[in-house]
Amino acid sequence: MGVLKFGRYKGIAIAVIIGLLIGVAGGKFTWDSTPAQTTAQVSAASGGFVPPGQLDTDYMFASGGQAGTLITYGLPSMRIIKTIPVFAPDARTGFGFTPETKKMLGDLSWGDAHHPTMSQTQGTYDGNFCWINDKANNRIAQVDLRSFTTTQILNVPNLMGLHSLSTDPDSKYLFTASEYSAPVVDGKPNYAPLESYKDSYYGIVSVVDTNKAGVQAGQSGKMNLDYELIVPPYDYDLASVGKGASAGLAVFTAYNSEEASTDLEKNSAKFDRDLTLVMDYNAAQKLIDAGQQDAVINGVKVIDPRKHPGIAYLLPIPKNPHGVDISPDGQWICYSSKLDPVVTVVSTEKLKKAIANQDYATTTWGLPVIKYQDVQEAQIPVGVGPLHTQFDDQGYAYTSLFVESAVAKWQLGTWKVIDKESVNYNVGHIAVAGGDSMHPFGHWLVALDKMSLNRFLPVGPGYPVTEQLFDLSGGAKMKLINEVPSDREPHYASIIPAKLMHPLSIYQKDASRPNSIWSDDQAKVVRNGKDVTVYMDVVRSHLTPDQIEVNQGDHVTMYITNIEQQPNVSHGIAISDYNINAAADPGETTHIEFTADKAGTFPYYCTDFCSALHEEMMGYLLVKPN
Amino acid sequence: MGVLKFGRYKGIAIAVIIGLLIGVAGGKFTWDSTPAQTTAQVSAASGGFVPPGQLDTDYMFASGGQAGTLITYGLPSMRIIKTIPVFAPDARTGFGFTPETKKMLGDLSWGDAHHPTMSQTQGTYDGNFCWINDKANNRIAQVDLRSFTTTQILNVPNLMGLHSLSTDPDSKYLFTASEYSAPVVDGKPNYAPLESYKDSYYGIVSVVDTNKAGVQAGQSGKMNLDYELIVPPYDYDLASVGKGASAGLAVFTAYNSEEASTDLEKNSAKFDRDLTLVMDYNAAQKLIDAGQQDAVINGVKVIDPRKHPGIAYLLPIPKNPHGVDISPDGQWICYSSKLDPVVTVVSTEKLKKAIANQDYATTTWGLPVIKYQDVQEAQIPVGVGPLHTQFDDQGYAYTSLFVESAVAKWQLGTWKVIDKESVNYNVGHIAVAGGDSMHPFGHWLVALDKMSLNRFLPVGPGYPVTEQLFDLSGGAKMKLINEVPSDREPHYASIIPAKLMHPLSIYQKDASRPNSIWSDDQAKVVRNGKDVTVYMDVVRSHLTPDQIEVNQGDHVTMYITNIEQQPNVSHGIAISDYNINAAADPGETTHIEFTADKAGTFPYYCTDFCSALHEEMMGYLLVKPN
Repeated sequence: MGVLKFGRYKGIAIAVIIGLLIGVAGGKFTWDSTPAQTTAQVSAASGGFVPPGQLDTDYMFASGGQAGTLITYGLPSMRIIKTIPVFAPDARTGFGFTPETKKMLGDLSWGDAHHPTMSQTQGTYDGNFCWINDKANNRIAQVDLRSFTTTQILNVPNLMGLHSLSTDPDSKYLFTASEYSAPVVDGKPNYAPLESYKDSYYGIVSVVDTNKAGVQAGQSGKMNLDYELIVPPYDYDLASVGKGASAGLAVFTAYNSEEASTDLEKNSAKFDRDLTLVMDYNAAQKLIDAGQQDAVINGVKVIDPRKHPGIAYLLPIPKNPHGVDISPDGQWICYSSKLDPVVTVVSTEKLKKAIANQDYATTTWGLPVIKYQDVQEAQIPVGVGPLHTQFDDQGYAYTSLFVESAVAKWQLGTWKVIDKESVNYNVGHIAVAGGDSMHPFGHWLVALDKMSLNRFLPVGPGYPVTEQLFDLSGGAKMKLINEVPSDREPHYASIIPAKLMHPLSIYQKDASRPNSIWSDDQAKVVRNGKDVTVYMDVVRSHLTPDQIEVNQGDHVTMYITNIEQQPNVSHGIAISDYNINAAADPGETTHIEFTADKAGTFPYYCTDFCSALHEEMMGYLLVKPN
Repeated sequence: MGVLKFGRYKGIAIAVIIGLLIGVAGGKFTWDSTPAQTTAQVSAASGGFVPPGQLDTDYMFASGGQAGTLITYGLPSMRIIKTIPVFAPDARTGFGFTPETKKMLGDLSWGDAHHPTMSQTQGTYDGNFCWINDKANNRIAQVDLRSFTTTQILNVPNLMGLHSLSTDPDSKYLFTASEYSAPVVDGKPNYAPLESYKDSYYGIVSVVDTNKAGVQAGQSGKMNLDYELIVPPYDYDLASVGKGASAGLAVFTAYNSEEASTDLEKNSAKFDRDLTLVMDYNAAQKLIDAGQQDAVINGVKVIDPRKHPGIAYLLPIPKNPHGVDISPDGQWICYSSKLDPVVTVVSTEKLKKAIANQDYATTTWGLPVIKYQDVQEAQIPVGVGPLHTQFDDQGYAYTSLFVESAVAKWQLGTWKVIDKESVNYNVGHIAVAGGDSMHPFGHWLVALDKMSLNRFLPVGPGYPVTEQLFDLSGGAKMKLINEVPSDREPHYASIIPAKLMHPLSIYQKDASRPNSIWSDDQAKVVRNGKDVTVYMDVVRSHLTPDQIEVNQGDHVTMYITNIEQQPNVSHGIAISDYNINAAADPGETTHIEFTADKAGTFPYYCTDFCSALHEEMMGYLLVKPN
């Protein structure tokens, strides 16, 4: 569906993207989406309430966690506007039911979606794409924010537990790493006994090219895997890509420097500091461009940084660090230590100097270990269980405190904590609008809490999690103004002002699109041996043709075009007992294939309540018994 | 999972149900769920806003439409608290991933969920079950409202387009019918050419026994298909089961008295009145109990009502009637005519008299046709495109107007329209709290609108639908106080006050539960030839065992018990690359089975962020290559 869909609006896409890029390159966004509706005004009395008929001011894209989705919220109302299927089938949209999307999902019917990452141009969210990872099955998906659909899923070989996802200020690359180490073996099962963990297991850093150049040329922006690094068998947790002062670096937290492979909750918490990873990705790219990778493993160019000084360094950071987040100007690299109540700030300037001086503490796993005291700028006593830090546009940072169930606000430069607000309860990630980019928008902070006991009406033993919205615009103190439950469990979220988005409202009619038809008289059923192809159009209130007869065992292909050009008039098509539903939004052509192995009479019908005669919008598939 | 789950809390379930039933039988509800939190106070200033820390007052259960789910909202905030998977797999909860729930879903991975139906005791919602139908695949599911999980899916043979779902005041039966007619054939494909539609196609009414007696005895309330009627090949749309004055009757709307099988949007809209169905289900049950069914077709007892006078009657109703809804006292049967701007009110008393007098207009398809003028009490000019009617506790009725995009409020008895409010836009169903039962609660009305253009931030060519909340407590006029988008598309919803619900907060520890273990030292891996069984416990922050080695090709069964007894501490378990995720809520045992056909090293990990050491809660599955 992705390929087809993109084809459908390639013309518009080119215009929009080029327009946007020119706008951004010129220093401002030229696209203006101000809607006819008024937008929300937040008042103290009504918190985040957005009265009927008013629009939210911002979008939030949150991962859907184990549901494998990307969830679109409106802020400040916190209403879910759309759930975008990414790693799991979704009959509602036909995702995973059309041949194109079935192929995209492969043999997998779920994903563990963690870290939505917004595309950026010159360090600002540009509203083009949102990428998101699947920790369980080591994949990265690309969601097109014009159509709000998943347009690519990239399998990333060699690593296990693909957990982090971060991009550079121009979104040329995506960086990720293995949360769990594993044997790395070419062309054979990656089996090695756990007794050999320290020798046979590796961490992996993967670098993905987003094909930004392709996007600029109006292409679909297909990602491809650029190269990987093998790294020590620690557990790589979060990543952050440098910007401004730190441009060209990518940093990764890691726990389990102990290299334990059992009882991790005890055995990986023994050392006071863990060795985290600092990578010079320009140096790595230069090596790759010169064809000097050390191996090609399962089709991926792999660098062993032990053999190439200047690519990877280890940096000790207090206890089981979780998040690492770089300040908007790139100067400060902020590590949150799960098991030490501090955020450690590393100075980019000092880090670069330490690397330039080559004055290392020691060498571990063949990699130089930077001296902690050489690069540390500050240790901020933020509170217990710090996990993640985000930044606003006023020089402040915000750190989530899982154990303390609070968010700490502190100042860059003075390193003073100036506010702390309780959350309910056990906050994981936090999201500030634009808070991981060079140009944060501030204003909103959402705390993604993991527990919700007593916060919402009870719904049985499986509790929801809680998302809490803070207003940052009222001075030093953060103000809690709204909260909503969420099915378990969004991990990270990104917030973007509505005016930076440029969604399509329909797919344009494209008479040259393969297999589409645009009027009832073009509808037809074509038989070629046992292959039957149906060219169908749908429009209020009929499906044409509305009678199809095939023989048992025929292979049936249906191309279904919604010929409406009015926004909001979508049609679905279900075939009873054939486990098929697909949807076609205005101007879209969708595609169904199945083998008519069950004989009998099977109604098909529109599944979107599209008109007063919606229920009359049906037909019969007759499968004649052999 | 359903079977296992129920087993787990059977003891509690018995106590709760018996307690509740006694309470209800005594004329009041004795169970009091008033939470520690304050509950929402609605103010004019804040509309439906529920400030952080306050609870909603009511639950709304809405069908998830093509997503095959049941969605739990809180009112008045309209926040989605929990999405319950019903007809489609959901990795988040393990539904469709455990052997028990895979079996429940069969070969199907989606459903078109339409009409949630709340269980009732003496005509009042009792908070025990919510049943919901799958229009696409002709199934009815039972959702247990103590655990908020799907506990049974019943396939209903012989009919196509299972659309309506209604229950009697004691929820002894569920009634449904075929929206689409089809051949009815025993033991062979139901194939017949469309040319023979009028002779070979039939409508079907299906009556399901909810096993209420079983529920009362503390059993699981498993539904079974009681019997079916064959009826004329019209398109049966909605159903309503009699109560009070009309107890023992079930009424069904139908369009397509024209018996068309093509171009239905034209050909089924030719007659000014359609023949709807009136059924005396006590008479039908008596026949079944006496073993006097006319046939057994695909395992179902079937009555041909043409052969048994006194079971089924046809009743002409103006043009393509959609909803039929019976007033709380059972006196008034209200038909909404899609293509005629009226609600037709039929008097139960007159209907019974007409049947007793046997003075019919004619006979069609072998069934007596009741004279319209004999039974009609009123025709209310509600507005254009009436679809559904609900009732409050003050003697008012509310009818949705699809074409007019409005809800009309009118008075029972005077038949006067006293208010009409616009909705945005094209409302299908409406839900008033308890509004289809003998004891409506009134207060809230939700309009389930099909369009949302300009109501929410744009999200690409696939628009959400809109749910709008009206406050009915302010006198004659309905007041719009909140609106939320929803993924396409909830059809119907039921609203129940929170105090009538009795959800579980955990599953009790049950040491006698088969395959469960309750401490780390009971954890084990048992090999029997190529069958490997793992007995695992999960608790913050470890999975025991955390190393499992099997041989390629082994069949692996895992029983995983969450031994926590603290509410809100759920754990998930994902196995990388094996397309497996399951969840275990506190005290729950879940179950995974797979063949270890891929050799290599596969991390498994907890997918619910359960503690500061959640990420350390992992293990390794090693599959040794052959």
